[in-house]
Amino acid sequence: MDEKLIQERIRQGRAFISGFGDDTGLENYQSDQDLKKPQPPLTKAPMTDQALELPNDFEKLSIDGDFLHIINTRRSRRSYTEAPMSLLQLSYLLWCSQGVKSVRGRAYATLRTVPSGGARHPFETYLAIQNVTGLQDGLYHYLPMKHRLEFLGCPDDLRGIISRSLCEQDWAVKANVVFFYSCVFYRGEWRYGIWAHGPMLMDSGHVTENLYLAATSIGLGGCAIAAVDPEAANPAFSLDGKEECIFYAMPVGTVPEDPQGEEETFYAFVREQNL
Amino acid sequence: MDEKLIQERIRQGRAFISGFGDDTGLENYQSDQDLKKPQPPLTKAPMTDQALELPNDFEKLSIDGDFLHIINTRRSRRSYTEAPMSLLQLSYLLWCSQGVKSVRGRAYATLRTVPSGGARHPFETYLAIQNVTGLQDGLYHYLPMKHRLEFLGCPDDLRGIISRSLCEQDWAVKANVVFFYSCVFYRGEWRYGIWAHGPMLMDSGHVTENLYLAATSIGLGGCAIAAVDPEAANPAFSLDGKEECIFYAMPVGTVPEDPQGEEETFYAFVREQNL
Repeated sequence: MDEKLIQERIRQGRAFISGFGDDTGLENYQSDQDLKKPQPPLTKAPMTDQALELPNDFEKLSIDGDFLHIINTRRSRRSYTEAPMSLLQLSYLLWCSQGVKSVRGRAYATLRTVPSGGARHPFETYLAIQNVTGLQDGLYHYLPMKHRLEFLGCPDDLRGIISRSLCEQDWAVKANVVFFYSCVFYRGEWRYGIWAHGPMLMDSGHVTENLYLAATSIGLGGCAIAAVDPEAANPAFSLDGKEECIFYAMPVGTVPEDPQGEEETFYAFVREQNL
Repeated sequence: MDEKLIQERIRQGRAFISGFGDDTGLENYQSDQDLKKPQPPLTKAPMTDQALELPNDFEKLSIDGDFLHIINTRRSRRSYTEAPMSLLQLSYLLWCSQGVKSVRGRAYATLRTVPSGGARHPFETYLAIQNVTGLQDGLYHYLPMKHRLEFLGCPDDLRGIISRSLCEQDWAVKANVVFFYSCVFYRGEWRYGIWAHGPMLMDSGHVTENLYLAATSIGLGGCAIAAVDPEAANPAFSLDGKEECIFYAMPVGTVPEDPQGEEETFYAFVREQNL
């Protein structure tokens, strides 16, 4: 193991968080927005010629009316039941995590249910669905402008694709839905250029946190996963990984009422090692 | 401007989001946790010998009981009134964004009101306070284990420090409280080593999103800021920026009931440029 290489990676990672990196030679840098270059589209174009209109009668859901209770009871849920998720529940999760409330200007920015630096909203939402009422199992893409869902097909090896995409975290395979988030790099880079990438990672946390809370508010559960293997996930959704790359995921599913025990298994090493 | 340098920065940024960087030469890498090295403390030690116990009778607050309304009405608020924020409101914001619900094992992990990869919770919360009932203006540090606040002093040039720390975004200077988040790098690196840094940025978004929603739920408002200048912010809180560095901030304050107009000023360029 090359200790110097390790230290260099740690140094780079820390510099990335600290914000501005080494800007030597880039003092007069201007982003493409500064240079008045054309703006990229606010969302990805539909990938198919059909899309399902999602229900939005959310008043029919039983949503926890105690915000602090939602905050206090949100936790990582890695164990799922075999009960189906309803299409309305899925629609609500998509709305709360990426829904478009309005458009600023003619087509300058989307205003969504989550914040994003400069309102760039550089993400696309892809789904691996199993056991959602009214939907066939398979892969989907969310169209946030119209709150619609398009079906991308169902590969024979859906569970294998999910598992490999999530670095073999097989508990995730049992979730009714796995949300996969891609970053469309240039959407953020157009405005923030060389400084776009840290803020886009921060923004992704806004999305998954809303997804955690929305799931909790209707009695579902999930657990965000940063250990995504883009080489497995990208081809499943026909992405090349260069301009758009899957980088974050969150399985969400129906959960047992009493989660006692599920975490004990996952964290057995804490007890075993007396940590 | 060196176009090659720009392209290299963009390439690095994209690789950072995509996840695993170039691991050539690091195939057998093990983190310090893998190597059974001692774990760093779960939180930073108090910086002073006095701390104020924060109130936690949150039932006295008027918290919006409609979760979807909170989600739908959350927006960036950059204009603040001169009304004070109450200490209970501030306490609630701190609880919802970084409060410790329990400790796993003897001292393996904190479980908090926000999720964090591997429950590492690598952040510390610092505050620049102006106009919170019962608190003198100045700089503070949050002690999440005991839900207490410690006073770090009040520099003569508090507003100048806030402004310079936020790259001269002077609207932020009028907020009752500016939350400054530092990253204590080794807390995440101990477990995830060379892969720790992207996930820590994602985790930071979980924190600010809870802060957005909690503020919205009690009629306050704020706006997260990634454009933080650590060279201005770190010394204000006695940080050297090497092991711990401020990298994210969010002003939160009392806001006018009718925000009409405030965004129009900020986004005047959209209309002017017909975007």
